Amino acid sequence: MFVSFEGGDGSGKSTQAALLAQWFESRERDVLLTREPGGTPIGERIRAILLDPDFGEMAPITEMLLYAAARAQLAHEVIAPALAAGKTVISDRWLDSSLVYQGVARGLGRAVAEVNRHATEGLMPDITFLLDVDPVVGLARARHDGTLAAAALSDTPGHDRIEAEGLAWHQAVREGFLALARKHPERIAVIDASGSPDEVHERVIRLYGEHAGDAGRKA
Amino acid sequence: MFVSFEGGDGSGKSTQAALLAQWFESRERDVLLTREPGGTPIGERIRAILLDPDFGEMAPITEMLLYAAARAQLAHEVIAPALAAGKTVISDRWLDSSLVYQGVARGLGRAVAEVNRHATEGLMPDITFLLDVDPVVGLARARHDGTLAAAALSDTPGHDRIEAEGLAWHQAVREGFLALARKHPERIAVIDASGSPDEVHERVIRLYGEHAGDAGRKA
Repeated sequence: MFVSFEGGDGSGKSTQAALLAQWFESRERDVLLTREPGGTPIGERIRAILLDPDFGEMAPITEMLLYAAARAQLAHEVIAPALAAGKTVISDRWLDSSLVYQGVARGLGRAVAEVNRHATEGLMPDITFLLDVDPVVGLARARHDGTLAAAALSDTPGHDRIEAEGLAWHQAVREGFLALARKHPERIAVIDASGSPDEVHERVIRLYGEHAGDAGRKA
Repeated sequence: MFVSFEGGDGSGKSTQAALLAQWFESRERDVLLTREPGGTPIGERIRAILLDPDFGEMAPITEMLLYAAARAQLAHEVIAPALAAGKTVISDRWLDSSLVYQGVARGLGRAVAEVNRHATEGLMPDITFLLDVDPVVGLARARHDGTLAAAALSDTPGHDRIEAEGLAWHQAVREGFLALARKHPERIAVIDASGSPDEVHERVIRLYGEHAGDAGRKA
C-alpha cells in the first residue's frame, strides 16, 4: 500500500506522515517513510536547488522538471522496490503537489501531467490524505513558532524560496488541492488540519479505516 | 541566429564552438557562446549532479528530466533573451543530444521529445553542426592526452559518469546522431571531425557558408 500526504506549507504533512508511520509500525506493518522532493541522494541534491533562495530567477518549467526528476528517482530507487517487497510506503507529497503548485499556481497546466506521466510511470498512491488548512494558519505554523512542520519544510526553516511567495499564491494552492480532491474522491480524502497534531492524527486514522473498509468490501 | 554543435564525447564540440564564435566576432557579430547542461547558475548545479560519478544509480528517466530542466532554464534565461537582442547564439549541445543519448542510447524513445517540447517551448537551432568521429578516436581524445575537448567535457576530465560507458554505447550514440541528421537534412550538417581543430573549423565555415547561401536564396 502506497499512502501520500498533501497540503500547503504548514499543514502538518511531515508530522502526520510520521504519526501514521508509527501507527502502522505499532500494528506490525513494515513501513517506509519518505518525502519529496528528496528521499534519495540524487533527490536531496535536487531539493537543495529547488529550495535555494538565491535561485529566484528559476523558470516555472525548470522548477516543474526538477520536481519531476526527483520524483522519478524516488519512484525508481525507493518506492517501487519497497512496494514490491510488501512494505507500506508513506510519502510526504507526491504528484498532486506538482499538479497544484506548478500546474495551477504557476500556470503550467497540462504540461505537468504530460511530463509526470513519464516521471512516475503511472505509480500513484492508493490513498492520499489532503491536509486542508487556512493558509494564514499554515504559514504562521511554518514560519514562526516551530510547531508542526516548520523544521521539516526546509533545511533553512521558514526562509526557503517556496515560502517566500505571497498569501494569494498560497490561497490558489489551497483551492487547487480542493479541486483535485473533488476530481478524485475515490483516492483523495480531505482532512481538516486545524487543531493539535493528535486531533488531526485521529481524523487520519478514522478516514483510513473507512477507506480500508471500502477497499475490503470492494475486494 | 541560433547555432548548435552536436556529437559524441571527444568530437571537438567545445573547441569548434569557440572557434566559430571567434570567427563571427572577427566579422563584428555580437556572439553569445554557451553550453548545456549548464550555461546558467541553476544549470551548472544540475550539470554537477549529472556528471557526479557517485550517482551511478541514476534512473534514465531522472537523467532525461535533469537535462530537460537545465535546457529549459538555459532557453528561458539566456538563449531566448540573446536572440531577442539580435545576438548570434552558439551552444555546445542542444535537444539533439537528449534525443540521442537518452532517447536512443538509453532507450527512452518518444518520451524525450514529449518532455522537451515543454522544456524548449519549440526553441530549435537554425543550423546544427554534427561533428562525426569514430568513437575510438573521440574517446582517446577525451580521455588521454588533453587534445581538443577533454578539459571541456567535464570538470573532472575523463572520469565523469557519461564517459564511463562502454564503447558499444558510444557507437549507438554515433549512429543515433547520424540517423537524426538524415531525418533533418535542412538543419543538421554532418562534419567529418577527424583531423586537426583548424581542419575541422575550415569544414564548419565552408558548410556554414553553404547554409547561409541557401537561406539567402530562400529568403
